[in-house]
Amino acid sequence: MGTGVGIGVIGAGVMGADHARLAAGHVRGGHLAAVADADQARARFVAEKYGAALAADAHALIADPEVDAVLVASPDATHAEYVTACLQAGKPVLCEKPMAPTAEAALQLVEAEAAAGRHLIRVGFMRRFDPAYQQMRDALAAGTLGAALLFHCAHRNASSASGFTAVNSVTGAAVHELDIVRWLFDTEVAAVTALQSLAKPGGMQRDPLMLIVETAGGVLVDIEVFVNCVYGYDIRAELVCTEGTMDLKRPAPSEIRHAGQQARAFPPDWRGRFEDAYRLQLNAWVANLGRKDAPGASAWDGYVASAVSAAGVRSLASGEREEVLLAPKPDFYA
Amino acid sequence: MGTGVGIGVIGAGVMGADHARLAAGHVRGGHLAAVADADQARARFVAEKYGAALAADAHALIADPEVDAVLVASPDATHAEYVTACLQAGKPVLCEKPMAPTAEAALQLVEAEAAAGRHLIRVGFMRRFDPAYQQMRDALAAGTLGAALLFHCAHRNASSASGFTAVNSVTGAAVHELDIVRWLFDTEVAAVTALQSLAKPGGMQRDPLMLIVETAGGVLVDIEVFVNCVYGYDIRAELVCTEGTMDLKRPAPSEIRHAGQQARAFPPDWRGRFEDAYRLQLNAWVANLGRKDAPGASAWDGYVASAVSAAGVRSLASGEREEVLLAPKPDFYA
Amino acid sequence: MGTGVGIGVIGAGVMGADHARLAAGHVRGGHLAAVADADQARARFVAEKYGAALAADAHALIADPEVDAVLVASPDATHAEYVTACLQAGKPVLCEKPMAPTAEAALQLVEAEAAAGRHLIRVGFMRRFDPAYQQMRDALAAGTLGAALLFHCAHRNASSASGFTAVNSVTGAAVHELDIVRWLFDTEVAAVTALQSLAKPGGMQRDPLMLIVETAGGVLVDIEVFVNCVYGYDIRAELVCTEGTMDLKRPAPSEIRHAGQQARAFPPDWRGRFEDAYRLQLNAWVANLGRKDAPGASAWDGYVASAVSAAGVRSLASGEREEVLLAPKPDFYA
Amino acid sequence: MGTGVGIGVIGAGVMGADHARLAAGHVRGGHLAAVADADQARARFVAEKYGAALAADAHALIADPEVDAVLVASPDATHAEYVTACLQAGKPVLCEKPMAPTAEAALQLVEAEAAAGRHLIRVGFMRRFDPAYQQMRDALAAGTLGAALLFHCAHRNASSASGFTAVNSVTGAAVHELDIVRWLFDTEVAAVTALQSLAKPGGMQRDPLMLIVETAGGVLVDIEVFVNCVYGYDIRAELVCTEGTMDLKRPAPSEIRHAGQQARAFPPDWRGRFEDAYRLQLNAWVANLGRKDAPGASAWDGYVASAVSAAGVRSLASGEREEVLLAPKPDFYA
Repeated sequence: MGTGVGIGVIGAGVMGADHARLAAGHVRGGHLAAVADADQARARFVAEKYGAALAADAHALIADPEVDAVLVASPDATHAEYVTACLQAGKPVLCEKPMAPTAEAALQLVEAEAAAGRHLIRVGFMRRFDPAYQQMRDALAAGTLGAALLFHCAHRNASSASGFTAVNSVTGAAVHELDIVRWLFDTEVAAVTALQSLAKPGGMQRDPLMLIVETAGGVLVDIEVFVNCVYGYDIRAELVCTEGTMDLKRPAPSEIRHAGQQARAFPPDWRGRFEDAYRLQLNAWVANLGRKDAPGASAWDGYVASAVSAAGVRSLASGEREEVLLAPKPDFYA
Repeated sequence: MGTGVGIGVIGAGVMGADHARLAAGHVRGGHLAAVADADQARARFVAEKYGAALAADAHALIADPEVDAVLVASPDATHAEYVTACLQAGKPVLCEKPMAPTAEAALQLVEAEAAAGRHLIRVGFMRRFDPAYQQMRDALAAGTLGAALLFHCAHRNASSASGFTAVNSVTGAAVHELDIVRWLFDTEVAAVTALQSLAKPGGMQRDPLMLIVETAGGVLVDIEVFVNCVYGYDIRAELVCTEGTMDLKRPAPSEIRHAGQQARAFPPDWRGRFEDAYRLQLNAWVANLGRKDAPGASAWDGYVASAVSAAGVRSLASGEREEVLLAPKPDFYA
Repeated sequence: MGTGVGIGVIGAGVMGADHARLAAGHVRGGHLAAVADADQARARFVAEKYGAALAADAHALIADPEVDAVLVASPDATHAEYVTACLQAGKPVLCEKPMAPTAEAALQLVEAEAAAGRHLIRVGFMRRFDPAYQQMRDALAAGTLGAALLFHCAHRNASSASGFTAVNSVTGAAVHELDIVRWLFDTEVAAVTALQSLAKPGGMQRDPLMLIVETAGGVLVDIEVFVNCVYGYDIRAELVCTEGTMDLKRPAPSEIRHAGQQARAFPPDWRGRFEDAYRLQLNAWVANLGRKDAPGASAWDGYVASAVSAAGVRSLASGEREEVLLAPKPDFYA
Repeated sequence: MGTGVGIGVIGAGVMGADHARLAAGHVRGGHLAAVADADQARARFVAEKYGAALAADAHALIADPEVDAVLVASPDATHAEYVTACLQAGKPVLCEKPMAPTAEAALQLVEAEAAAGRHLIRVGFMRRFDPAYQQMRDALAAGTLGAALLFHCAHRNASSASGFTAVNSVTGAAVHELDIVRWLFDTEVAAVTALQSLAKPGGMQRDPLMLIVETAGGVLVDIEVFVNCVYGYDIRAELVCTEGTMDLKRPAPSEIRHAGQQARAFPPDWRGRFEDAYRLQLNAWVANLGRKDAPGASAWDGYVASAVSAAGVRSLASGEREEVLLAPKPDFYA
């Protein structure tokens, strides 16, 4: 029982459990209605912890009349299926990236949404809600630093999961920067070139990667993706404009002076860095369900992110600059 | 209409409106039920904005059966009256500091609560929930920096309201640090000496102040209170321990390089600095209504903060070191 | 009159005057003996200021028996001529970069030095003496951060001289980073690709540039060169290793909190950033005259820097990746 | 053999050896002429290292005709004797602080210098030459931050020598800040109150100290002196003015990201922090020998520093605020 929008969360792993926590207590006008997971024990644990219903499975959750909107945080391979089911049920869905396993599959979702004629799909590119990136976008809009020229990015994880490959570095990690580039500069990505360090003495060989990203608007972007940087979770970015630059600064509430060093700690993973972004994303979603002009990433944005990532993946294979191939943008998203 | 704890907010000024915003959308297990303010138009504006009921006045709000818990953010002079009314109504109340205009009046509330036998009062010393102060307390508990020796603090506001005096600097500004000292070191304040710069060319003369605070546990504390520092809202603190020190770092999501400088902006007031603390305080309050061991400041803590402030105010007048005079602590708070 | 090595400085412009200042008072075992400049008035001013002889011209200075060693800081086009004259006179010479206008001309100096059989030429890549770069090199040697993988650099000047072109950005600005890469990683540069932002609304169009530098050892380097960044002189670099990274931090003795910002000032030009490096370079030069294993850049290093720059310049023209073409290294430098 | 001013260094310990190094190679218009030390082997080592003469003892060094100016860096107890000998020999002397063991003894040197009628004595308060303190003084002169109100200082050593007492903390450590206060604010110190943390679980008990310093001009100063802070050598200071503040920033050429932390190293002792200050002090001394208006601290400043320290020491004993007692300033220093 609750008020406002009943939110159903599919997926009760680390990511899903965190979404459930936020939906349960940190979203205005919404509440956590139900939880589903292929692992019923895991779903039950989260449902009970936050006082929500336990769904028999993802489809039952989508069908549940108490669920007004669906948040998909299950394994990547299942995203498209659940998003499709939400479209069929006519329920708004916020899907963790990637929306679909390929750009083609993502395009099918775009077409299905356009055919249905309702803006039901949002994709979880939460960085669009991060206060630091917001300040960059505000500075560009205000013109205080002049016009954007370059954008230097680094995306670092302490370690990657077993089986993680260079393809995953592009589609699962750098895709966040690729989306931010489109949002920050309000332009499309024209081409991607994947480069790599050849000096790695051991471990995952194509890590770190460097992606050189050319935008239609002319801003040149370089993205380091380093998913086994060992020292901590760290997202760096510097926006270079004609009259000044802006650096992201990560939250670090304190600094110690100890053992010969003045030091600030890194968070072990993304939760310590993007806590605010996830919360703000959830609130913006609930406050704008079904609106075409809702903040955050649309299905079209989800498709484009996949198409840009695909160019990066092709470049990994070819060793060459690869142009981004985009289907025509449906009028529905104009 | 809503679920969980119905929160009534008394006061719809800057502070009250911000509490209403948090109660409306950022508290798990609670919702904004009603708003009251001596200025009905202001109350109506906030109530409508967040979909809450408009109370005829503060006492009507306290009596409203939809209101399960009361948040007092009205002018200081009214706090004790509303807290008393909440005690009589048997409703939990979170009161902005100061709980009462004098230490004696605060003690009466303590005695009333103890007589009533229920832990209904909490006082809004929100810094106890600030992540940066929490890291200091965690470090002390973990012993990573050794034992605490000194604590250097600066409390700076860009400007003070008209009519603000050195007494207000102690009772309205430094009182936050005075409370944090007790909480951080789990000790009482023994004495306060107020010093001042004599170099001010104009403006409010006893600003900045320096308070030298001696604790029963031996930690020596200095607090600069500067309520017209001009440049921005800034809270600094360094905890000095036997093996290292820890500095508070304020949130600043980005840094620019522009016009010859590398710079981070200050927030204009406390909302940009303690946003998280207020939200966490509200959630902790709702999750622990009526519990003796709830986190945050109790009525007793509110009384002691007033008594310590009073020593500071006496020192302002006498120019001497003034000992803190405390009534015996009722068993109810043991 | 003076003790130790008599230093003659050719060039009394901004750079030469600063060298004269250092030679006159900040070098152990040496003193400023003479100054020459095509502009006699300028040379006289510097000579008198520091109590040195005024030479009739550069060649007279080189021939002066009081001059034991020559520092060339005259216009770039004259460097090779004066270096050649020093070789003929058998006098050690420290030449500002570039040693010669082309890689071919530089190679001729290398061959002339090798034929003469004495290590007389050093090139003024002063960053090799900068404490910050030294700490990077020390960390690599110590292995504390693991093995080097990537190196991100930015070279920014507030503004460039009239007539400065993208070719100058490579040969006059980025050449410092190109030399540091070789020195830091003890490897050769294999290829350079010049990229550029296409978003510049006005001004010098190929500014900023991005150089992608591939090293024989596998470390991948990106260098932003932005000679009209407006905001100040700023050199950034982050060394990315397998277990951690290291950032250069520029000297900034103080930080202010003023007008809503916490800020550190940039120096207007290189003197505020590399003061120590120039002084340490001069001392190391005087202490190691004629030694093959002297610290700093040799004639061979000066040639290679030119050859690497030439690849960058070719890439500017071709828009393609260009390999570095190097003559065989004479045994004399082995 | 050498040019310009022949410098004799008395004392070949850590401090004296460092002065010898600077005199040998980093001073314009001067050179290291001779070295003396009660420990002849130590003196010989330094003399040979820098190519200077070995003096039989301090008095022989002062008498040596090759020695034009004397730098005293011997044990504190010997300072007054050697300064007196320099006065008698008519030679300029730069004496490490303290100039004399007591304020009374310092006053005798002042009177002796005034009687001799030549400005021969300078005292080694090198912080007056530190670029960071210079920026503070410049900001005050320029008025960019408004008028000075408060000055917060911390003076921390990793560890103190055996036998070091709270008296030494005042006379040997805090004396640097006490001198800087006079120089920065161009005012005298009126009174000192010594406070202490009572929370130290073990070790040197009156460490850290807090000195509350009242100036005649009204600026209020607090100085933490912590000579066993364990973590490193650290000098902090924040100047608080009517419109802004300024913090000292220590030199730290690089920052690492490693093992979960973003960190900058502290130097183990003062040499890593005040290297520039010592060098600039030495150059300014040699360039202004015998001038009344030479930068740096005069004999009078050395006396006053002792007198202010003495007030601090009295306060340590009395536990009370102690006024500074100053002899009348001789016209010679007006």
